[in-house]
Amino acid sequence: MSSIREVAKLAQVSPATVSRVINGTANVDEEKKKRVLDAISETGFVPNEVARSLFKKSAKIIGLILPSIENPFFTQMANAVERTADKYGYRLILCNTNDKPEREKTAISMLASMNADGIILTTNNEETYESVNSCPIPVVITDRRIAAKALAGYVHSDHYEGGRIAAKHLIDCGCKNIVCIRGPVEVSSARARYEGYCKVCHEQNIKQQVVDCTYDFEKGLEVTETILSKYPDVDGIIACNDVVAISVYKVLNSKGIRVPEDVQIIGYDNIRLSKLVTPEVTTIAQPIDEIGQKAAELIINNDIDNNEKEFIFETKLIVRDTTKLKGE
Amino acid sequence: MSSIREVAKLAQVSPATVSRVINGTANVDEEKKKRVLDAISETGFVPNEVARSLFKKSAKIIGLILPSIENPFFTQMANAVERTADKYGYRLILCNTNDKPEREKTAISMLASMNADGIILTTNNEETYESVNSCPIPVVITDRRIAAKALAGYVHSDHYEGGRIAAKHLIDCGCKNIVCIRGPVEVSSARARYEGYCKVCHEQNIKQQVVDCTYDFEKGLEVTETILSKYPDVDGIIACNDVVAISVYKVLNSKGIRVPEDVQIIGYDNIRLSKLVTPEVTTIAQPIDEIGQKAAELIINNDIDNNEKEFIFETKLIVRDTTKLKGE
Repeated sequence: MSSIREVAKLAQVSPATVSRVINGTANVDEEKKKRVLDAISETGFVPNEVARSLFKKSAKIIGLILPSIENPFFTQMANAVERTADKYGYRLILCNTNDKPEREKTAISMLASMNADGIILTTNNEETYESVNSCPIPVVITDRRIAAKALAGYVHSDHYEGGRIAAKHLIDCGCKNIVCIRGPVEVSSARARYEGYCKVCHEQNIKQQVVDCTYDFEKGLEVTETILSKYPDVDGIIACNDVVAISVYKVLNSKGIRVPEDVQIIGYDNIRLSKLVTPEVTTIAQPIDEIGQKAAELIINNDIDNNEKEFIFETKLIVRDTTKLKGE
Repeated sequence: MSSIREVAKLAQVSPATVSRVINGTANVDEEKKKRVLDAISETGFVPNEVARSLFKKSAKIIGLILPSIENPFFTQMANAVERTADKYGYRLILCNTNDKPEREKTAISMLASMNADGIILTTNNEETYESVNSCPIPVVITDRRIAAKALAGYVHSDHYEGGRIAAKHLIDCGCKNIVCIRGPVEVSSARARYEGYCKVCHEQNIKQQVVDCTYDFEKGLEVTETILSKYPDVDGIIACNDVVAISVYKVLNSKGIRVPEDVQIIGYDNIRLSKLVTPEVTTIAQPIDEIGQKAAELIINNDIDNNEKEFIFETKLIVRDTTKLKGE
């Protein structure tokens, strides 16, 4: 297929003029217009969505591509993105991928062809990186870090520090046998939290004990059984997120293991649910709303240049009912 | 602005041929193509998104407009829609409205202009009905019923029967002072459930006691305090959904009121969370996956005619830890 540039060359006009004729975005001199249409006819050029979009004005659309809409962390972040979008008159289009690269790629190309103003994406699927690299509209990565180039920016929490704070808190609570439930190893934020935990173990000269998990309830139930059989002396559990912390509590409670007296639990994220369940979950808070807002603002303010911008937010310990400080 | 028909007339071709030239969807004889492009030039016709879409083939897109992505009922339904869409090679575009009519209207018009194959919508905002009536693509309404015409179909549970089953179960559990937490009165499904409860009260000659609520945790906490002060003898609570049932438990537990010994609680929906929290919540199950699947299939199979189709699914009692049958 011939390009808009070939049409422009043949018609002896600029590519922008070709675009104006195609999109009708501005008046074009009749004689030039005729030349463009003749050239289109001659070259067989078909204006596709992407070509059209390159020249159009802002569509006032933000695309948000989420790995899971059943994970409250992401739906809370989505709400924050939406509030910000709404404030500036932008629309939000949500795409859920269930972490599948094919869906991520389809969503990226669809949003690009719609001429969205930018995409907010959370992924660690390497197969998707090429689509990110070649995406004609700005891409902001939230929560994770990826090995892709030409990004508009990163917005995430300091997960390494979050992992450190969680481990230190359990030690402050008197735990001597801590097990870390690690999120998926391909997920950069899960690795960073785990590394934070390891650092504390090293500093405090305590054993590293780890089990692998995903971010959903059911897997959390399963993994807790594993912990109890593999590490029967466990007295502290760092869950990979709040949802899994709730699962851990469920299993312990069903076996008559008291929380926090026998085993202490700390979650991660500070989703709303964490303080609404009984008992309320001690957790490492991510500033979920700020992350969503910042990501949206990067796109809306077109605050994008060739330097990848990275915005790192602090995490914070929130002590609730599933842990208890020594001596309290 | 001139129309595609004027262009067709001038070029002495059919409007479909004009469309083929614009969209490049099929080969057009060079001589005809030239005539079309000349006619476009002469008339000043600009193919806009909507005009383009009228002639395009299926975009293989389903639009899902949700009132809240923080309500697990809707995200579980969205996942079911997506699984079905995926199976048939359709993409899903999600729009979250926070129940705001302006957002619903914008989402409807955006999806229509994208030439989506259909829209799945849950709303009871009267201001939105006109947009539904005039929507050029099929609209399927889930969960609720609305006073709009020309719908492609309704897919929902039998909420009236659900309300009846909930009330009858609490009576079977020995409750004599039941309070019904009613969802928003503008929501047809909330009203139907409440009417089911009222019917049982009437049949059994027991007092109707009601408090109003929305579908979120925080409001559930507040409303439980109201119940305890207004109806101190309460021994059974019908929550408007599972999320609110979890809030009710939280407040009762914090005051030393035992569940189910002192007060029994039944939720609604059977979201995954309801069996993952401690204690597990007795509830009225909606077949959430089937609802999402059916709604998607109506659009995908283009199973749409002028008769509004209504698909009503049965609800089912799931007894868990927050209620206890008499004598057990």
